[in-house]
Parts: sequence; C-alpha cells; structure tokens
Amino acid sequence: MAGPVSVAVLGGTGDLGGGFARFLLRQGARVIIGSRDAERARAAARELSSEFPNAPTVLGESLAEAAAAAELVVVTVPYAAHRATLDAVRDVVQGKLLLDATVPLRPPKVLRVQLPAAGSAAVEGQQLLGEGVRIVAALHNIAASHLAAGTLPDCDVLVTGDKEADRQVIVDLLEAGGLRAWHAGPLANSAAAEALTSILIGINKRYGIHGAGIRITGTPQSG
Amino acid sequence: MAGPVSVAVLGGTGDLGGGFARFLLRQGARVIIGSRDAERARAAARELSSEFPNAPTVLGESLAEAAAAAELVVVTVPYAAHRATLDAVRDVVQGKLLLDATVPLRPPKVLRVQLPAAGSAAVEGQQLLGEGVRIVAALHNIAASHLAAGTLPDCDVLVTGDKEADRQVIVDLLEAGGLRAWHAGPLANSAAAEALTSILIGINKRYGIHGAGIRITGTPQSG
Repeated sequence: MAGPVSVAVLGGTGDLGGGFARFLLRQGARVIIGSRDAERARAAARELSSEFPNAPTVLGESLAEAAAAAELVVVTVPYAAHRATLDAVRDVVQGKLLLDATVPLRPPKVLRVQLPAAGSAAVEGQQLLGEGVRIVAALHNIAASHLAAGTLPDCDVLVTGDKEADRQVIVDLLEAGGLRAWHAGPLANSAAAEALTSILIGINKRYGIHGAGIRITGTPQSG
Repeated sequence: MAGPVSVAVLGGTGDLGGGFARFLLRQGARVIIGSRDAERARAAARELSSEFPNAPTVLGESLAEAAAAAELVVVTVPYAAHRATLDAVRDVVQGKLLLDATVPLRPPKVLRVQLPAAGSAAVEGQQLLGEGVRIVAALHNIAASHLAAGTLPDCDVLVTGDKEADRQVIVDLLEAGGLRAWHAGPLANSAAAEALTSILIGINKRYGIHGAGIRITGTPQSG
C-alpha cells in the first residue's frame, strides 16, 4: 500500500473501527487495535488476525500504547468517548497524522444535527490536541457494514484537513482500497460531513435504505 | 403544478433567484420578483415575461410588496443581505411558508465553512422571523445555471424544516419540476446542506468541475 505502514485504530472494537480495520488489512497494513480496555482490544485483534491470515498479525493494546506504536492514528469512537480518547493519547500523537472519523451524534436525537460549539468534532479535537497534531477528518458518511464487508460502497468520502499533504495521504490510502475520496478543504469543513451523517441516518429510516451515502456529481469542464 | 400558485422570489434579480424563477415559470407558476430595488425587480420581471410568454405575467415589486402578494416566499439572497431581507418582510410573511435557500458564505473565504452561531442561516432566519413563519430550507447545493437552463441537474436537493407537511410542499414543488428531493429532517439539519456548498465550490475549483452537486445513494431494504 502507498500509505502509512502501521495504523492504530482507536475504537477498533466497535463497528466503524472494526470495518475500517478490515479495510486496512485487505491492503496488507499493519493494524493495532486500541481500546480503553486493552483486553477487549486483544480479543478483537485475535479475531481479525484469524480472519486475515495473510496480513501482518494484528495487535491489541490500550489507547496510548496503540497510538504510540503507529504511524497513523485513526479515531473511530462514539462522540461521548471522543474527548477522553484524545486525552488518553495526547502526548503520544504529537507530530503524528491523526484521522478523525468521529461524528458528533448526541443520542437519543441522532437524526438532528447538533454540532459542537467549536463547529465540528474534528475542530474540537484539534483544540484538545494542539497544533502539533496533524488532524484529517473523513469517513463520516460510510456505513461500517460496507467497510467491513469489503464490497465497495456507492459512497464518496469527503476528506478535510488544514494541510493538503496530510489530506493527500488519506485520499491515497482510501483510494488504494477502491474508495473515491475528495479533497474537501480545511478541517473546518468537516462540519459539513459530520452534519450530513444525521441526515443520512434519517434517510435510511424514512426511505428504508440500507447505508445511504453520497456521491459527488458534476461534469468536468472542457478547455 | 401541485404546489403554491403564487411565489415571490426575493433576490430574483440574482443568479440563483433568476434560475429558480425560471424553474417555477416552466411549471406555469405565477412569479413575483422581489428586490430591495423595485425598479430592478420590474426590469427582471419584464425579461422573464418575454422569455416565458405562455406563463402568467411576471411582476416585479419591492421585497415587502412581493412577499405580501405571494403564497410561498422564496429567499435567494447573498448571506450579507439575509438579515435585511428578512427584516423587510417580517410582518407580511407571518403564517406563510418561506423557502430559504441562503448559504452563509462569507467572502473572501467562500471555500471555508463558516456557519452562523445559530447553527445555520435558516435557523438564524427562524429566530429573526419568529415561530409564526413556517421555514423550509433547500436548494443550497444546486448550481444556479442548472436551474436557469432547464437541464435537470445531476444533483439531489436536501429539504429541511421542522414540519413534515411544510417540507412535503417543497418536495412536491421540486419534484414536479423533475428534481429529486429528500426529506432531510428538522430545520437544524440545514447546517449540513449549507456547509456542503463551500465544499462543492472548492471541488469545482480543484477538480475543474462545473456545478458539482450531490446524489444520495444506497440500496432500498427488501422486506
């Protein structure tokens, strides 16, 4: 794969994290599952290793150990655990690239957009971690089941981040796995992708769709 | 047409308003162009009338006169004029359905999502006009040129509003003209559609696309 060789998936014991871990393993990445509960992380890692016998052995660690051991740190936790997760890894992610997939859903009203005061969960994360961490936000709009199953979803990925080179690493990583990913501007623009998730959940429910997503459309200009 | 018989397009002298006025005229609606400058509104109305000789004569009025004369009031003004426009019509739109297409772009940084403190321009509008006005937000993501040209754009419309029946009026109006429109939840969810516009403008620029939009994807569940 073109991207980072070792990836920590914090929240990798959950649906989205497990789905993205499988996406990475299909590309032969070295994956480290991170969880607040290291024992659960190890159990999830063993399951993934047996599912992908040809990929490097999956490890399971505490949040901080997983983040410390990886080149790229991916955050796939529920919003209620976002702050505590970032607090747990703050010191070890300085200077690293961090992919934040957190969507600020606030149960029970998950169909209503309720953006944090900072504008988005990712921007809130940047404020928590400081400017030394290179945050890119993506993966808000893809159903976990699509990522897990390995069937390419009919859904594009909006990739936001303040540094173009950092966004490009994530765009390349996603496209290497067959997803269509778009540079979607600065990290502040993660508000759009995060907010869209509540709408997609509502559309799933109202229209009886499984894993609604978005595609970017339009005609390339000639000349 | 199934929807309202008379529609005021506030900001109908601009690109989006002119495009949507043409969309309505193609359906045979009675259109009243509203502008801060009534003389400009009348000039735009004459132009539209000559372009659509088979539609009811288009009128041009001041903002308040146009809004007072119509069943449905559509707001298609730049964000900088949003508050003043709503102030000008506050008294005459009480009890009416108001379709707000305003996107809170703040030049020169139009590629950066900068949502208002209220969460979205539409929610800000609701606060300005009070609960007596039934606001629905839509049309944020469609290029004005597509609406004007009458070629159906490869772009869905997200329709948000607190009352389902009000959203349905707008969904029906848009679908009668051939657009695909989705119930996208409460008015607070307009934040997603408004924010998405900055991303689409950025994608137009970066990828050389003319009028990028979105499509909702997904497979209807069986059983």
